[in-house]
Amino acid sequence: MFSKRFAVQLQSCVRQFCTTKCLTANAQAFEYPSVSSKLVKELQGIVGQSNVSTAEAVREQHGHDESYHKSSPPELVVFAENVEHVSHVAKLCNNNNIPLIPFGTGTGLEGGINAIKGGVCLDLNKMNNILAVNQEDFDCTVEAGVSRQTLNSYLRDTGLVFPIDPGADASLCGMCATSASGTNAVRYGTMRENVLNLEVVLPDGRVFDTAGKGRRTKKTSAGYNLTNLFVGSEGTLGIITKATLRLYGIPECTASAVCSFPSVKNAVDTTVNILQCGIQMARIEFLDEVAIDAFNKYSKYDMKVAPSLFMEFTGNEGTLAKQVDLVSEIVNMNEGSDFKWAEEAEEKNRLWKARHDIVYACMALQPGSKPYSTDVCVPISRLPDVIVRSKELIDAAGIIGFTLGHVGDGNFHNLFLINDDMPDQKAKAIKLSKQIAKIAQELDGTCTGEHGIGLGKKELLLREIGEEGLEIMKQVKSTFDPNNIMNPGKVFV
Amino acid sequence: MFSKRFAVQLQSCVRQFCTTKCLTANAQAFEYPSVSSKLVKELQGIVGQSNVSTAEAVREQHGHDESYHKSSPPELVVFAENVEHVSHVAKLCNNNNIPLIPFGTGTGLEGGINAIKGGVCLDLNKMNNILAVNQEDFDCTVEAGVSRQTLNSYLRDTGLVFPIDPGADASLCGMCATSASGTNAVRYGTMRENVLNLEVVLPDGRVFDTAGKGRRTKKTSAGYNLTNLFVGSEGTLGIITKATLRLYGIPECTASAVCSFPSVKNAVDTTVNILQCGIQMARIEFLDEVAIDAFNKYSKYDMKVAPSLFMEFTGNEGTLAKQVDLVSEIVNMNEGSDFKWAEEAEEKNRLWKARHDIVYACMALQPGSKPYSTDVCVPISRLPDVIVRSKELIDAAGIIGFTLGHVGDGNFHNLFLINDDMPDQKAKAIKLSKQIAKIAQELDGTCTGEHGIGLGKKELLLREIGEEGLEIMKQVKSTFDPNNIMNPGKVFV
Repeated sequence: MFSKRFAVQLQSCVRQFCTTKCLTANAQAFEYPSVSSKLVKELQGIVGQSNVSTAEAVREQHGHDESYHKSSPPELVVFAENVEHVSHVAKLCNNNNIPLIPFGTGTGLEGGINAIKGGVCLDLNKMNNILAVNQEDFDCTVEAGVSRQTLNSYLRDTGLVFPIDPGADASLCGMCATSASGTNAVRYGTMRENVLNLEVVLPDGRVFDTAGKGRRTKKTSAGYNLTNLFVGSEGTLGIITKATLRLYGIPECTASAVCSFPSVKNAVDTTVNILQCGIQMARIEFLDEVAIDAFNKYSKYDMKVAPSLFMEFTGNEGTLAKQVDLVSEIVNMNEGSDFKWAEEAEEKNRLWKARHDIVYACMALQPGSKPYSTDVCVPISRLPDVIVRSKELIDAAGIIGFTLGHVGDGNFHNLFLINDDMPDQKAKAIKLSKQIAKIAQELDGTCTGEHGIGLGKKELLLREIGEEGLEIMKQVKSTFDPNNIMNPGKVFV
Repeated sequence: MFSKRFAVQLQSCVRQFCTTKCLTANAQAFEYPSVSSKLVKELQGIVGQSNVSTAEAVREQHGHDESYHKSSPPELVVFAENVEHVSHVAKLCNNNNIPLIPFGTGTGLEGGINAIKGGVCLDLNKMNNILAVNQEDFDCTVEAGVSRQTLNSYLRDTGLVFPIDPGADASLCGMCATSASGTNAVRYGTMRENVLNLEVVLPDGRVFDTAGKGRRTKKTSAGYNLTNLFVGSEGTLGIITKATLRLYGIPECTASAVCSFPSVKNAVDTTVNILQCGIQMARIEFLDEVAIDAFNKYSKYDMKVAPSLFMEFTGNEGTLAKQVDLVSEIVNMNEGSDFKWAEEAEEKNRLWKARHDIVYACMALQPGSKPYSTDVCVPISRLPDVIVRSKELIDAAGIIGFTLGHVGDGNFHNLFLINDDMPDQKAKAIKLSKQIAKIAQELDGTCTGEHGIGLGKKELLLREIGEEGLEIMKQVKSTFDPNNIMNPGKVFV
């Protein structure tokens, strides 16, 4: 037992050392060696020769997501078949100071998987088992490679569903890593509210369950909430290899309707009133007049070209009709049009498919162009302000831009069309995206509601949480990944 | 720019050092000096003479919560009036290696505030301003000392409510620190789902907002989820000085009913069926026959003495009636009795007051005794098993025990009556509590759903998350509190 005085000295020395370390841990000063042929052989020894690829096409496919960020292929791609593979690969990369980038489906929108520091891309798609579905408990456990639609197809006969829907058929563990959500977060929350436990592999090869091995309770107060620390960590702390998720009963009845409004504010006020009445909607989606126009042309609808709300009601026979009556009253009160209904399953599916196809609808207006999506979230009362101001900026910039919003959450996206042959379009889109994010931040909002920071929003994150907040996040990063090999160059400036 | 080779060496050295530090950081080997008269003067200099107390009565009042753990008074109590006070006090304690224990209302149930290592208790009740209520955005921001009931009285005319209700009139930041919940978590979730941002003071005096200064969005993917790292951290990482919380519209109509069942299993099956149908209940509370008997005697009811469900329905006129019809069908299907209704506001309040008075009702059965509450949570399908087995253990132990459950969440409590004059009762209660927690853990459950680890469940936490998980939590702790001054001796063995 050392003396009190010595204890105090040692602790303050440790603290100073720790702080210094943390301040440098994520600095760009970090250097990474290239992957040696020796290391390639060692990786082949772990996962088997056929699970290591240096083929240009494979590297290229793993070097980018669906965003505007230019491709940065990894030096090689490793396919893991089980958690032991992941653990050994992580340990080997950590011991050799090689960047390691977990890869799901590559459907991200902020360049989260681009290998900007080289290194190894770890593809988890071969880990695709649905390990458990506990119908009575409304939960399931899946491996890293299982996608949202795969799970829901598997659940078809159980009367249960995993409702979080970002649009893309992303891998569920990838959705954990970016804290995804989407159109029905207003009803079911985001990934943060729907993950009960995660199996995680740390860079040093340690494997652990964030809530304890096999735990799957809806509530817990047992120790720190490590589960939600990994949800949204974008592959910078460790590799998520397994997720235990909440499931929900499929509502007995659903109905969908669209109505239009004289202004953005009327549409948002309608949403606020609906929430104030405690009416539970499955979805409330906002589309501006530009998006509605594209929507009509692409999906052969004849909606009024005006700011509109797409709504989905769920409930039981009887309760549904009552909800609809109440919402109709609120819509009328806010000068909204009558509902345009989609009651038959087929018509409902067509409507929501069209809503999800909006990106393609917009792209059709400028053939050969790619979409660029912004993603900000503000307190709902600030929505009209930020949407109107962003539309003014878009008009002034002179590019085609659409506004879609998960309006019940205060989260909305502008979609810009950018054509690689017109470099000024991309430059304008990037500039607009930053301007709109800054407006959101000035209105108590965030620069990202569901896409994450990735490569594209590192300066905006600093602006949002300040030097202090960033330093603290870096300290957390250093705790789990002291060598900074996990997806380096992302999230932090 | 140092060489790659040096970088690798430095990093692995840092990592080794860090790990060693982390492994020792929370060990009981930590030594703390006594609070010197010099330090008392320095504290008086920060908060003013009247805000520092060494009076025995004050220290005694701050040395224990409402649990069975024996009182451990702090060496002195400091009352903070603002965040600057908190920051300077924290820094001073940190520099002098003095334990610092944040204090809200002392209504915890696991000895979370007992000053077992001596040091300074920091009472936050003078920081009691409601800083903002944003009605349209369904959020508010409160200082550390604002209690749940104070906030809801303040909200009375807004049509909004903060629904999380642990029973006690706890401080809201204290509820954040323990990740509290209660009877209506089945509808609104726990604190984890309802905190948008926290102002936190770290032991070194740094003040930061976990989601960035002034942010209050319903969704964010901007960096690590530090908010949920501090929710449930039990004062071991820093001091929560401000919370931004979600609010909800008060439902247009509510109705409450009670019905009884032939067995625990029928009551739980009823709950599962209700959830499967996606029917949204505000509360589903289970009481066993022993609790119902006490309930009848204390609150002058004549409920059938059998396992029972207390339910609260909320909705709009019309939707409510339909919900009730559906639930009635499900209850009949599971051999439940007809509903005993409480429709008038007065009768409803009387019913739920009686439900919340259950502790006193139970205590009345053995005058002079104190309650001892267990708190486990399991996947809902495991509830009948763990409840039945716990009742067998209670009968075998020969003490009076009641079972109450937030059954929609799989969370339930056994209440034991212990009399200080009968030491064997306390010993039996502690033993039973451990036995029941271990059964829950064997059934994929947790040793605490909402009370936290505190002093009482440190070994159970180790059992639940394993050496690996505990080491990782200790690493996180060391990152924020390298000198281990924040509420030392809690959570970690």
